[in-house]
Amino acid sequence: MKTPEIYVSRIGMIRDIMREKGIDAVIITGSDPHCSEYPAERWKQVQWVCGFTGETGDVVITLDHAGLWTDTRYFIQAVEQLEGTGVELHKTRIPGEIRIPQWLAEYAFEGVSRPVTVAVDGLAQTVDAVESLRSAFRKAGRVEMGVGANAFSIIDMPDMLDVIWNDRPSVPSTEIYQIPEEVAGESRQSRLQWLRDFIDENNCSAMLVTALDEIVWLLNVRASDVAYNPVALSYLLVTWDRVVWYVDKTVDKSPVTEETLAVLEEDGVEIRAYDAVFGDLAVADSLNFTALYVDPSTLNWHLSRVLDGISDKIKINAGASPVPLRKSVKNDVEIEGMRAAHLADGIVMENFLFWLDKAVSSGARVDEWDAACKLDSMRAAVPGCKGNSFETISAYGPGAALPHYVTPHSGSTVLEPHGLYLCDSGGQYYNGTTDITRTVPLGPCTELEMEDYTLVLRGHIGLAMAVFPAGTSGCQVDYAARCPLWQFERDFGHGTGHGVGFCLNVHEGPQEIRHNHNSQPLLAGMITSDEPGIYREGMHGVRHESLLLCVDNGVNEFGSWRAFENLTLCHIDTSAILPDLMTDEEIAWLNAYNADVYRRLSPALSPEVAEWLRERTAPVVR
Amino acid sequence: MKTPEIYVSRIGMIRDIMREKGIDAVIITGSDPHCSEYPAERWKQVQWVCGFTGETGDVVITLDHAGLWTDTRYFIQAVEQLEGTGVELHKTRIPGEIRIPQWLAEYAFEGVSRPVTVAVDGLAQTVDAVESLRSAFRKAGRVEMGVGANAFSIIDMPDMLDVIWNDRPSVPSTEIYQIPEEVAGESRQSRLQWLRDFIDENNCSAMLVTALDEIVWLLNVRASDVAYNPVALSYLLVTWDRVVWYVDKTVDKSPVTEETLAVLEEDGVEIRAYDAVFGDLAVADSLNFTALYVDPSTLNWHLSRVLDGISDKIKINAGASPVPLRKSVKNDVEIEGMRAAHLADGIVMENFLFWLDKAVSSGARVDEWDAACKLDSMRAAVPGCKGNSFETISAYGPGAALPHYVTPHSGSTVLEPHGLYLCDSGGQYYNGTTDITRTVPLGPCTELEMEDYTLVLRGHIGLAMAVFPAGTSGCQVDYAARCPLWQFERDFGHGTGHGVGFCLNVHEGPQEIRHNHNSQPLLAGMITSDEPGIYREGMHGVRHESLLLCVDNGVNEFGSWRAFENLTLCHIDTSAILPDLMTDEEIAWLNAYNADVYRRLSPALSPEVAEWLRERTAPVVR
Repeated sequence: MKTPEIYVSRIGMIRDIMREKGIDAVIITGSDPHCSEYPAERWKQVQWVCGFTGETGDVVITLDHAGLWTDTRYFIQAVEQLEGTGVELHKTRIPGEIRIPQWLAEYAFEGVSRPVTVAVDGLAQTVDAVESLRSAFRKAGRVEMGVGANAFSIIDMPDMLDVIWNDRPSVPSTEIYQIPEEVAGESRQSRLQWLRDFIDENNCSAMLVTALDEIVWLLNVRASDVAYNPVALSYLLVTWDRVVWYVDKTVDKSPVTEETLAVLEEDGVEIRAYDAVFGDLAVADSLNFTALYVDPSTLNWHLSRVLDGISDKIKINAGASPVPLRKSVKNDVEIEGMRAAHLADGIVMENFLFWLDKAVSSGARVDEWDAACKLDSMRAAVPGCKGNSFETISAYGPGAALPHYVTPHSGSTVLEPHGLYLCDSGGQYYNGTTDITRTVPLGPCTELEMEDYTLVLRGHIGLAMAVFPAGTSGCQVDYAARCPLWQFERDFGHGTGHGVGFCLNVHEGPQEIRHNHNSQPLLAGMITSDEPGIYREGMHGVRHESLLLCVDNGVNEFGSWRAFENLTLCHIDTSAILPDLMTDEEIAWLNAYNADVYRRLSPALSPEVAEWLRERTAPVVR
Repeated sequence: MKTPEIYVSRIGMIRDIMREKGIDAVIITGSDPHCSEYPAERWKQVQWVCGFTGETGDVVITLDHAGLWTDTRYFIQAVEQLEGTGVELHKTRIPGEIRIPQWLAEYAFEGVSRPVTVAVDGLAQTVDAVESLRSAFRKAGRVEMGVGANAFSIIDMPDMLDVIWNDRPSVPSTEIYQIPEEVAGESRQSRLQWLRDFIDENNCSAMLVTALDEIVWLLNVRASDVAYNPVALSYLLVTWDRVVWYVDKTVDKSPVTEETLAVLEEDGVEIRAYDAVFGDLAVADSLNFTALYVDPSTLNWHLSRVLDGISDKIKINAGASPVPLRKSVKNDVEIEGMRAAHLADGIVMENFLFWLDKAVSSGARVDEWDAACKLDSMRAAVPGCKGNSFETISAYGPGAALPHYVTPHSGSTVLEPHGLYLCDSGGQYYNGTTDITRTVPLGPCTELEMEDYTLVLRGHIGLAMAVFPAGTSGCQVDYAARCPLWQFERDFGHGTGHGVGFCLNVHEGPQEIRHNHNSQPLLAGMITSDEPGIYREGMHGVRHESLLLCVDNGVNEFGSWRAFENLTLCHIDTSAILPDLMTDEEIAWLNAYNADVYRRLSPALSPEVAEWLRERTAPVVR
């Protein structure tokens, strides 16, 4: 925990630079150069500047104002963390919100009759964000690169904090390991050939792949450069005759990395330093291609400026990357791996829930943090487990009412033998990725807790049982998970399901299950979570989550049909259920699911745990 | 029934004109000048040219080819009706389809090295359709208004068929009557003022309203110019200081029309001839406005060309009309009227179903057409009924498997005391519009008929019971109606629900319930149909339809809630139900609905019919 004075001092140093360079405003974002959902430590620039640790937040500093823009989810946290720093909270996702571009263009320099210069770290800024800023200034009557009093300019200062952030972490470079073809189900040559076909069909001769999970998927490698996401900080250039991987191998020279890179080079992949991409592209014609395909949604502004510089020689074709869709449809080998990983994960979960039950009911002191540590260590002990797939949410009572609760290391709530405990966790295994939430009644529950528990379970089952025609997208089945909640006028404010990678990011696209429009059909082979919830501030939270594999379900005169196979194996506690709220069909589903969990997991459990699970999976009767 | 020779002769006459005027192709559409869903007789130009009576179809005639473009729904009908006419069927909505613009641009004049001229009736053509034609020719390498061998031009020949269609119906002009303010719930002054506010907010000084239902809604009048749609063929110009209604009053000089027009003129509405709109707009600056708002989705090409001609003097602002949304949200008086109209309609329906039951079970000869006539005449006898709201679909057995079945006047199928009879009908009443489908078991049914009957009913009930947060759109609840069908891998190929007008078109927007994306939320006051179905070619069809009013359903910590009130009052036959396929909740809904129907309708029925209805509405038990 840093004191606020540190942030006051850092902001002061930034202002010194601004005065020296004639900059009127600086934008600092929490993005990395690849538009990753989670940045590595090096790019937690917002946190370094003001101490705010929320997942979404951007800072603007002018000579007389410092502000943090973040959304509803982080208001309370932001107020606490910004105290004493002099940084003011600007609320987004509220009616009447004023976002950064509008604030800078219309408010920050109101009445200022001289040219205005805004600096951004182009590595940590998307092309779109810079474009929004531009159009806001234009709308406010300013002229870009003009000379008059109404001029504005946006300048790119990559890694601008380097000069004052002495111990800034370097670009991460963790061990790089292979996913063998027998685990991935497809060779890197096959994936690269498929990409080259795509490049060719789009009348290009090269593609610069910028999203980290796309790169490691194409190369059948993994690393640990970003917490929980097994990716390597890198760029990948695939041309008609070359494959160049821009990745640093200087920090970690482990034998595994050395071997991986040797195999890649044997396969024709050239390894070059991470930063070499800028210089290489600046003289792109030497790379022997004439038309380059890039995906602007994961391209940073700095790199796009490099490409602007060669646009007289190279045609730049901006479009969506084809990798996310193909990556989302798991092949048969990946699916078998995911099933096996879920079996291993289910055993961990049942052993954890057994331990939890015994500990809490025996009166042992267990707080939320202890429980998370116990689960994490049990998972880490599984051979082939590479760690968590995200930070475990371990929450009891009111903590569980926050869908994005971060369990505090110390002083977390002590579990008591009543009410609901919510645990949302997942593992990265050598053969798959898991993500599971179970809400566990630790003893007697209130009527409202039981109602919420039952209704959320009905929503979870409703989606798991869904059958739908080919071509149906996630937004068209979202109702399945919400209907039982809506009938009782209850709801949840997050998506129902996200795509899950194979030994990769626990959140991936392009499919999702939520009510926002998304035209991507759910295809056989896609894996999506099923996680409805109900959250009552200051009281409790319920969420039930399993992963669903979309499968073919036959063809008839009405069309081709799809359904879900439940991958997650861990019983759903029946003690908090109000059976009268459920339909016969739902009860039958629940009993069959729990029986299947017992049948498949019990052989791998100790007799004591197996017997406990047998009792826990006894059928619900009405 | 005309002989094919007539169409051969008509097409020949069209070709004579083409030769005379140097025209290479003529496009003839089934649209009217207002992009109405159903055109008046005058604009059934496709039918006049080739005999095709389907709702969707366009004809193209060149000197050596005549073709009809229509979609899957009408292939069988088109083949029959085009036989002997020399008109070839071009199929649309199939893979590999070639639509008219592409066909004309790429195939019709392949290898023709001279300028090509295409004539359209600009009154019966949308701006968008002409634009598609233009871009297809451009894409094919032709130059508009060029002089070389690759030139093309599109010319506007309004009412081009007039010279050869001697008995072409004139612009219809039926009796115009008022909807009194106590029935409409709002005065025309209030509606016009609201429109003027909209015009003003959009920085315009006038709006030309072109959609017929929008015009009569704004003026609180109705007519019968188009079958089933109580509209008047007209244009409405609302400026900041004038209201000009372009409508013909020459044909029908009924006292009602005279009185209506007198009242309108008292209210400041100027009445001018339908065709005067073209001349008036051509000298628009004399109308004393400077910026005109138009909705391009209902503006015909001929009129848009008139507006092009004044664009140097008048700013044209093209955008969506605000009328459909406001019109779709019924006010309290309209809602009360709709409830009353549904009570009257329910009495008609029960008397009809009683008659049908007795007739069929007694062995009387009743065919589909007889049944339709009986129902139509019973409805027409209700005081205040202005006729049907669409053509009654009366279909038994295989006929019911066609969702858009047109009951033949002679030789229709005779009803037998077994299987399913489907009747989809509706009335226009002085105080509301109805639309109801009941599928009636006429005696013993097969297991498959009963399954389909029960599953469709479950879908119907699922949607009727839906509760959802404010902001939810129809595509987000469509699953409610499809889920029970999808679980058994059955489906239907049409939308689940369409908006319904108040004493107006039975199909209106902007809301709808279907899986296609539509972001329009369902607002309290909107009325939408609930009509899932299952259709088995050559066997049977099932559809259950009632109208649902969206209502406020309270506010709580999770948000504001909406639900549906069922407006339609007519029992749902329980004899074909398989109760074991239904949930307890669904059976409870059905029993409550039927009990309510009996309670509310029986006082208005004869003792004999009331007793019959009492038996028919006995609760389903399992």
